[in-house]
Amino acid sequence: MSKGTETRNRIIAKSAPLFNRQGFDGCSIQEIVSVAGLEKGSLYGHFPNKEALAVAAFEYAWRQTCASRTAGMNDVTSSIEKLKLHVHNAVARPAFPGGCPLMNTVIDSDDGNAVLKKEAQKALKGWREFLEEIVRQGQERSEIRSEVQAADVVSVTIALLEGAMVLDRFDKKAGFLVKAEQHVNAYFDSLAQQ
Amino acid sequence: MSKGTETRNRIIAKSAPLFNRQGFDGCSIQEIVSVAGLEKGSLYGHFPNKEALAVAAFEYAWRQTCASRTAGMNDVTSSIEKLKLHVHNAVARPAFPGGCPLMNTVIDSDDGNAVLKKEAQKALKGWREFLEEIVRQGQERSEIRSEVQAADVVSVTIALLEGAMVLDRFDKKAGFLVKAEQHVNAYFDSLAQQ
Repeated sequence: MSKGTETRNRIIAKSAPLFNRQGFDGCSIQEIVSVAGLEKGSLYGHFPNKEALAVAAFEYAWRQTCASRTAGMNDVTSSIEKLKLHVHNAVARPAFPGGCPLMNTVIDSDDGNAVLKKEAQKALKGWREFLEEIVRQGQERSEIRSEVQAADVVSVTIALLEGAMVLDRFDKKAGFLVKAEQHVNAYFDSLAQQ
Repeated sequence: MSKGTETRNRIIAKSAPLFNRQGFDGCSIQEIVSVAGLEKGSLYGHFPNKEALAVAAFEYAWRQTCASRTAGMNDVTSSIEKLKLHVHNAVARPAFPGGCPLMNTVIDSDDGNAVLKKEAQKALKGWREFLEEIVRQGQERSEIRSEVQAADVVSVTIALLEGAMVLDRFDKKAGFLVKAEQHVNAYFDSLAQQ
């Protein structure tokens, strides 16, 4: 890896938690430069502007999040067990610093940056398609009933998981995430072909 | 109503959508004064500081949201139908400008104002208790199975509803809210005592 690529990667890795915690507008160039241990001029040698860095930071944070949530899924054959492991990973493994980068970007994009919004839309679409494919494979393998709508299962799973993550960060004692996992586990079981 | 109370109420009603959309730090006193049609000095005649106004604005937005979500519930006797109507109200009736004030304050309080966080905690606690009481009444009336845990039902319902609201604002076409309502309706039916 060239020195330039190395520096670029370090800037992304260091600024990603900052963007994830504080949002696009809430992050100053000064803070970014400071966490990355750089001079301001050097930052602009690697990224044309703050937006380009924020996009790279989101992609990095989302890639890390996806890697964490899909860990071990290839070692599981049953589609229902794959879905359960995915949710369990999201519940039990440490989140990216500042919480789910997708949810944070979704919320931030309400009145925020249009390019970042597009990135979050792409990420949400990719996540939906990934999970829908597992449901469809389960139907092909006669593990999941054929009348189940993959899009319905995935929408409910993502909305419940993301809602519970936000509420769990806010109120640790109520057990939002643990209860969400119990609920979707029973729900996934209810989709099984008898 | 005195002129002072009237002005105070107008400031709250006008600034609440602004706080709800932009968060505590994202709202400048200049903007608040401008939407309320006031002079800066006059604002401080009604509220000691921005925080006190933000708390009053959150209380107002949450009161409006609760009124909308509980509309017609007293006219329904079945506890399961009450729960369904509550969710339907949240899905079908127009949200407070900027989306759910509780979710927005929860998200904002991550790195935001401690007093507002307390207000949101009080609101979430009140909402949970209100719904848990309906589940418990349903159990007393033998409409809901006695082994159902009211706290579990309520946690899942709130997390799914709030997650779906945020995602629905972000991606209107995917139908997150409609699918969330269908899912909890079936879930509430599954709690019924046979």
